[in-house]
Amino acid sequence: MTAALLLTGIAELTTNTPAPGDPTGTITDAALLLVDGVVAWAGPEGDADAAVAARAAFADTTVHDVGGRAVIPGFVDAHTHLVFGGDRADEFEARMSGTPYTAGGIRRTVAATRAATEDELRARLAGFVAELHRQGTTTFEVKTGYDLTVDGEARLARLAAEVTGEVTFLGAHVVPAEFTGDREAYLDLVCGPMLDAVRPHARWIDVFCEEGAFTPEETRRILRAGTAAGLPARLHGNQLGYGAGVRLAVEAGAASVDHCTYLSDDDVAALAGSEVVATLLPGVEFSTRHPYPDARRLLDAGVTVALASDCNPGTSFTSSMPLMIALAVREMGMTPAEAVHAATAGGARALRRSDVGHLGAGARADLVVLDAPTRVHLAYRPGVPLVREVYVAGAPV
Amino acid sequence: MTAALLLTGIAELTTNTPAPGDPTGTITDAALLLVDGVVAWAGPEGDADAAVAARAAFADTTVHDVGGRAVIPGFVDAHTHLVFGGDRADEFEARMSGTPYTAGGIRRTVAATRAATEDELRARLAGFVAELHRQGTTTFEVKTGYDLTVDGEARLARLAAEVTGEVTFLGAHVVPAEFTGDREAYLDLVCGPMLDAVRPHARWIDVFCEEGAFTPEETRRILRAGTAAGLPARLHGNQLGYGAGVRLAVEAGAASVDHCTYLSDDDVAALAGSEVVATLLPGVEFSTRHPYPDARRLLDAGVTVALASDCNPGTSFTSSMPLMIALAVREMGMTPAEAVHAATAGGARALRRSDVGHLGAGARADLVVLDAPTRVHLAYRPGVPLVREVYVAGAPV
Ligand SMILES: [Zn+2]
Ligand SMILES: [Zn+2]
Repeated sequence: MTAALLLTGIAELTTNTPAPGDPTGTITDAALLLVDGVVAWAGPEGDADAAVAARAAFADTTVHDVGGRAVIPGFVDAHTHLVFGGDRADEFEARMSGTPYTAGGIRRTVAATRAATEDELRARLAGFVAELHRQGTTTFEVKTGYDLTVDGEARLARLAAEVTGEVTFLGAHVVPAEFTGDREAYLDLVCGPMLDAVRPHARWIDVFCEEGAFTPEETRRILRAGTAAGLPARLHGNQLGYGAGVRLAVEAGAASVDHCTYLSDDDVAALAGSEVVATLLPGVEFSTRHPYPDARRLLDAGVTVALASDCNPGTSFTSSMPLMIALAVREMGMTPAEAVHAATAGGARALRRSDVGHLGAGARADLVVLDAPTRVHLAYRPGVPLVREVYVAGAPV
Repeated sequence: MTAALLLTGIAELTTNTPAPGDPTGTITDAALLLVDGVVAWAGPEGDADAAVAARAAFADTTVHDVGGRAVIPGFVDAHTHLVFGGDRADEFEARMSGTPYTAGGIRRTVAATRAATEDELRARLAGFVAELHRQGTTTFEVKTGYDLTVDGEARLARLAAEVTGEVTFLGAHVVPAEFTGDREAYLDLVCGPMLDAVRPHARWIDVFCEEGAFTPEETRRILRAGTAAGLPARLHGNQLGYGAGVRLAVEAGAASVDHCTYLSDDDVAALAGSEVVATLLPGVEFSTRHPYPDARRLLDAGVTVALASDCNPGTSFTSSMPLMIALAVREMGMTPAEAVHAATAGGARALRRSDVGHLGAGARADLVVLDAPTRVHLAYRPGVPLVREVYVAGAPV
């Protein structure tokens, strides 16, 4: 049986199907026809009757007037750390009152995560999924990295795979306390038994390549092991200082290098000449009072930019893609249209997904009806909950 | 008949009843007894049965377990401009793409407001009230200032008075285009017939005292006329540069001087030695890319600080008090506790209200149940909609 839904009364429809001079593929006074959870047609409302007749005549078509509001693709959040135990509100409060943040924080979440039962982690994750949906995020990646034992990382990956297909193995998040004296042994574990145990549940491999985390040589070794095992690379890099992250991401053919706060001219040129997406995570800079990455420089060089939340309990405990858009416009030189594009199509590119991040014919019908006449309001009205209706695969959530 | 509601399971209750060493009057594992829309008792949950027996034995008491969440007083937003027509998303988009903002923007909203019908303005305002409630704001001020004719300003004040007791006459928002050649005639109007027409609906008078708006002399004249007519003063001042705003506010015995972005040491000392609240509006700095006011300096000097949204279509189209809190922590040197205090008790002080902004016995039962174990999450989880339940005078909204 075929189910068809026609959305009408769309004041501004962002399709992300590039049109001449308009990478956002924007249609005003638009309609959108969804058939069996997929976009069948997007166009001017005046053409909707003909579109329905041509494509869905065989089905009952429900019509839903969204009342002169804007519709955008669901947000694609390509970088989160949502399977963990505990909370670090006290650490945040202390840091905001003057205590500096140190990497020790991750180990604290590791301890809490190891102590959490599977049911506790699953319930927590379900809460985050509901929170993501409420804010218009319809596709999201989730990383492991808060257990750092073979069985534990496999457990996190398995739980994450219950809620998303975009699971990333991040055994190389930090060297756990019990391996402080023997990094090599931990690397052997990550590249061997841990990778084997996580692989059935994961799609990607990731490394935190930064001074104080993993070195360029270590990063290269782990990414090679992952890609050899069928997990393509993504990377945390260039967050706290200049470094080899971008170079290694390009070398590894990574889908994305994430953070990109400190980039040399060579880094920018390397990104522009590659297929690697620069995923920017302004929630981190907001929550740690660090300077923001320069999105304008990347866009002007022709780099594909994505925005993601990096939602994690240490450095960015926000899951709000609307806030990422507002920050990108306030702090990073992006226009509202560029920021919305980066939070939808950009995220999809960072996950190498062609079925989401846009509303062209054939796309999965993941979309958001905003309580606003234009997507510009996502930056113009920062903090205001503007997500009114959310659809995943054509069904309201 | 007496209606009593006992809230239990409060992980962290912010009462704002100062306790030794704790201006926030925080009680953990707390309960709160509301009788006839007023707080009857706040204390440790273990004492709740006795409190109920002592105070509400004559009534049926409903018990509501909030499930280990934090409860705070409803936000008090002491500065908004919510009665207007039109939208300026295009202007915002242009400015964020490099076009500078000029004061002409206010006049654009004036034209749209004059053209709007009473029903249109009333519906728009009702939408904003719902939006405020959804975000935990339970007391809010609304200014006139987007019509600037005698009948029109009276209309705006009358409409605002339908939704709040805190209506402010802001005929001195900008000199309207038709008076450009004759400022004196407009001042005569504001201080005479316009004031008379608005007065029955208003509680306060306000002036936009800034280079390009109203001069110190003009400000003094308007505030004197207003206070003589029974409307105490509040003031827009020191937003775009150093100036006389704070000095005039202190001289006029104003309840609050709002913006305070550019303050001399004398200004800070004058505020500290007065009862004038410094109401900071970081939504403006966020949306215009200006530097933020220095809340730390004011707090350290002993000034009472309030946070407000300044929600208006030109320079800060956000109504989100949680975002104001997050920005105050990120950008203005406030701790999470200070920021929450400024957004509740601080706003109440700025409106000279003793019945709201706190949850001590006798307070109006305006409160927010957060989807979080502590108020710290309002800054720790920026952008995430954490307002779960909102009560006004003891009733859910
Ligand atoms: Zn991360
Ligand atoms: Zn204002």
